[in-house]
Amino acid sequence: MSLAEQVLSGDIRAAARMMRDIDDNRPSAIDELKLLYPHTGKAYIIGITGPPGAGKSTLVDQLTATFRRMGKKVGVVAIDPTSPFTGGAILGDRIRMNRHASDEGVFIRSLATRGALGGLSRSTSDVALVMDALGMEIIIIETVGVGQDEVDIVKTAHTTCVVMVPGLGDDIQAIKAGILEIGDVFVVNKADRDGADRTARELITMLEMRHVPEEIWNPSVLKTEAQRGKGIEELTAEILAHRDYLFSSGAISGFLRERNERHFVDILRDSLFKRALAFMERDNTLFRVVDGMASGGIDPYTAAEQVIGEMVRDNPPP
Amino acid sequence: MSLAEQVLSGDIRAAARMMRDIDDNRPSAIDELKLLYPHTGKAYIIGITGPPGAGKSTLVDQLTATFRRMGKKVGVVAIDPTSPFTGGAILGDRIRMNRHASDEGVFIRSLATRGALGGLSRSTSDVALVMDALGMEIIIIETVGVGQDEVDIVKTAHTTCVVMVPGLGDDIQAIKAGILEIGDVFVVNKADRDGADRTARELITMLEMRHVPEEIWNPSVLKTEAQRGKGIEELTAEILAHRDYLFSSGAISGFLRERNERHFVDILRDSLFKRALAFMERDNTLFRVVDGMASGGIDPYTAAEQVIGEMVRDNPPP
Repeated sequence: MSLAEQVLSGDIRAAARMMRDIDDNRPSAIDELKLLYPHTGKAYIIGITGPPGAGKSTLVDQLTATFRRMGKKVGVVAIDPTSPFTGGAILGDRIRMNRHASDEGVFIRSLATRGALGGLSRSTSDVALVMDALGMEIIIIETVGVGQDEVDIVKTAHTTCVVMVPGLGDDIQAIKAGILEIGDVFVVNKADRDGADRTARELITMLEMRHVPEEIWNPSVLKTEAQRGKGIEELTAEILAHRDYLFSSGAISGFLRERNERHFVDILRDSLFKRALAFMERDNTLFRVVDGMASGGIDPYTAAEQVIGEMVRDNPPP
Repeated sequence: MSLAEQVLSGDIRAAARMMRDIDDNRPSAIDELKLLYPHTGKAYIIGITGPPGAGKSTLVDQLTATFRRMGKKVGVVAIDPTSPFTGGAILGDRIRMNRHASDEGVFIRSLATRGALGGLSRSTSDVALVMDALGMEIIIIETVGVGQDEVDIVKTAHTTCVVMVPGLGDDIQAIKAGILEIGDVFVVNKADRDGADRTARELITMLEMRHVPEEIWNPSVLKTEAQRGKGIEELTAEILAHRDYLFSSGAISGFLRERNERHFVDILRDSLFKRALAFMERDNTLFRVVDGMASGGIDPYTAAEQVIGEMVRDNPPP
């Protein structure tokens, strides 16, 4: 039985092995993903994003518990831009999801760093695909929503929850986070802290400034205290309401088109780049270029054009 | 006179136009960058990174003022992952650097979003190159140091300052930031706040855990109150001490090699990807693939292989 078939039969260890193969950039991983692909697309993906310290992990933990009580299998992909020498990702996982450790209906995976060759956005899609094929019905992707990469990642989700927190800094800092336009649901977590109402009001005002037509989904702003489980029920209901909107309005098809395009383009970009690296290895091009840049004889723009000129056909067959 | 020659003669408006051309992905921008390239490499680049709310903008403002007093021309590249509908980048700029607005020795540029085709890391390198050619002696790159992209960007800097702030969340959140290993100088800003000493001690402990050999640079942890200008002098001295270390130890050559390699590879990846997009436009490949993914007849892995197979030569000339 192929690894893909094992995953499709619900074999958790096979899924873990396949994710390792993806991480290690094994060519076999691509073949297995091709086999899985036609059997995916069933999972509902929820993105949780927001600045550090907003309590996203606790919120993910609470949502996981809630969906488990509804009988759903839950996959969690946590994007951790972690320091290699502290081992934070593993530590975080253990503390975070301890109570789900022995639950076979929960599958947790941390993506600690972007691989040398693959983009983080592409790895996340691939890992979510494996979870989907494994039978996870809800997949939660948690990412620190500040970087552009991380904002892109969360676009894979059907429903994106943007988590804010009171007292993060002044207004400009909040605006800067650059994540307002990607939220389907907004959460002010740690709502017992000073300034929670003000943060919520500011979010509402900024959202109103957008003048979204009535028939389009209008995001709500909810308050939660994830540590004490407060507001989780309302948040879950709002996520499900957004799911209903996506399907009943037909917006789902446009969403899937965009997501498919992004996924394909990510794969194309990564694979092309790998080909270029392999191509350059034939005659040590990378070393020669970097040497030439140091001595001043070569500029990187011309060098890139030369490599591409040698590598790419000018007149491809139609 | 070419745009590049105008920039080299110190023409600020020409530099601004060239940066717009880079943003707009004009092919002419590459030609101009090629002309500039041999005249660059003089500027000293300082990276400022850290989580939102750490007060990085104020710190950059203070450092700018300090280097101006030393008679240095200062360029600032602020990476703002900004919401398109709030216009935060512009707002941020105005508030932030108001007092330098009329100073011809200061050139400020915000990179608000990653272009559709180019990576943020590559745009930052290109913009820094133009500032360097324009005669800026110090270039400060400010980025929110949480995302992987943003961490990569700051590696362009000779000296990277990681800015932390007390009370950002619990220890795990701090570890997660994933920016410890890239700091040459660590700053605990807003040092008048509760917990500043604790944050500083934690940083020192984590840095000591690395067991760096004595002859290698050992980062210090400094406390600042950027709003009131406290600690800025010490920070400047530490940055200059790191610069002295780089040059006197010879570490500068390894650093430049890595930076050149990253810059070349970024350009290569972006240019290849642009070629692929142009290639696919010939027969509407992107549309057909996304359509096929929706109907279930095509998987993105196979589709990418096919495009690359048609596009890339198998047996390039040696």
